[in-house]
Amino acid sequence: MEADRRTRLAPDERRAQLVALGVASLADRPLEALTIEYLSAQAGVSRGLLFYYFGSKQGLHREVVSTARDSMLHATEPAGHFPPLSRLHDTLTRIVQFVRDHRGTFFSLVRGAASGDREVREVVEQARAVQAERVIAVFLEMGVADSEMLRIALRAWVAFAEQTLVDSALNTEMSSEEIVSFLERSVKAVTQAVR
Amino acid sequence: MEADRRTRLAPDERRAQLVALGVASLADRPLEALTIEYLSAQAGVSRGLLFYYFGSKQGLHREVVSTARDSMLHATEPAGHFPPLSRLHDTLTRIVQFVRDHRGTFFSLVRGAASGDREVREVVEQARAVQAERVIAVFLEMGVADSEMLRIALRAWVAFAEQTLVDSALNTEMSSEEIVSFLERSVKAVTQAVR
Repeated sequence: MEADRRTRLAPDERRAQLVALGVASLADRPLEALTIEYLSAQAGVSRGLLFYYFGSKQGLHREVVSTARDSMLHATEPAGHFPPLSRLHDTLTRIVQFVRDHRGTFFSLVRGAASGDREVREVVEQARAVQAERVIAVFLEMGVADSEMLRIALRAWVAFAEQTLVDSALNTEMSSEEIVSFLERSVKAVTQAVR
Repeated sequence: MEADRRTRLAPDERRAQLVALGVASLADRPLEALTIEYLSAQAGVSRGLLFYYFGSKQGLHREVVSTARDSMLHATEPAGHFPPLSRLHDTLTRIVQFVRDHRGTFFSLVRGAASGDREVREVVEQARAVQAERVIAVFLEMGVADSEMLRIALRAWVAFAEQTLVDSALNTEMSSEEIVSFLERSVKAVTQAVR
C-alpha cells in the first residue's frame, strides 16, 4: 500500500505496469529468472506489494505469460478482408515479424509450454489452440473437407511451426520471406498429406 | 541400507528395480505424481533409502525419464538392413506400437519436455535429437540435398509427429496403419516443401 502513496497510479494501473515490466524482462532473461525479488528490485516496489498483487511467483508468471500470449495473438490476428490463402500469408508474415521483434517473449511462450506450472502450460496451450483454429478456418474456407485427421494434422503443424520459428527466426539470419514461404509450403503439404 | 539386508539384491540391482518401478508407475500417473513418498510406499522401502539413491524427487525423475527415453529409443531403433523408405516405415510402425503399448511412458516423455526441471527437459530433448537424426539419415541416403532448412524442417517434423501421436495414437481409436501412413506422407511432404 505504501508504494501506492508514492505515485498517482490507481492499483489497476500499477498492477498492469508491473505485468508489462515482467513481459519486457523476457527480452533478456527466461521466465524462470523472473522472480518476485527481481521484479521488486526492477520496479522499486516492495516484495510485499508484489505478493499482494500476484500471490506468488507462479501467480506472477501466469499473468505475465497471459499478457505475452494475448499480445502475440493480437499482433498476429488474421485480417478478415483477405481471401484465405492471402490471409494465411499475411498471418504468417506477421508471426515471423512478431517472433523477430519480440524474441524473448516468443521464446518464453514456447518455453512456457515447458513450465512446471500446469496453469502456465494451459495459458500457452490456449494460444496454440487459437492458432490451430485460425489455420483450420483457412483450409475449410478453401473447401478442404473437415475431418478428425485434418484437425490433428493442423494442430500438429502448429507445433511444427513453433519449432521452425525457434530454429530459423530466432537462431539464424535466414530471411523472413524465406521462412514465411517455407511455412506456407509446409502447411499446404501437410494438408494434402491428410487425404 | 536397512532395506538391502532384507533382500539378496546388490545395490545396483535394487536401484535399477526402483527405477523400473518408477517407469511402470507412469502407466497410471503423471511424472509429477511420482514422489519419493509414493515410490517408498509402492516399493516397501524407506524414504531414506530413496534419498540415498536419488538425492531428491528431481534426481528420481531424471533417472526414470532417462530410462523411459532409452527404452523408447531402443524399441524404435532402425533396422539397418532395410533400404531407407522401408526403414522409415518400419521405424514409424514401431513408434506407433510403442506409443500404444506404453501410453503412460510416452505421454510422460512428451510431458517431460514440459518439466520445470532443466535436466529432465534435456533428457527429452536428446530423444528428439536422436529421432531427428534418424529421419535426416533416411532422406540423405535417398539423395536429398543436405541443407540448414532440411535439418530445421525435419527437427520440426519430430515435434509434429509427437503431437500427432498424442492426438491420434493416444486419444483416438484410429488404426495404427492409418497413423503410420499419415506420418510417412507428412514427412515426405515436409521434405519436398524444403526445396
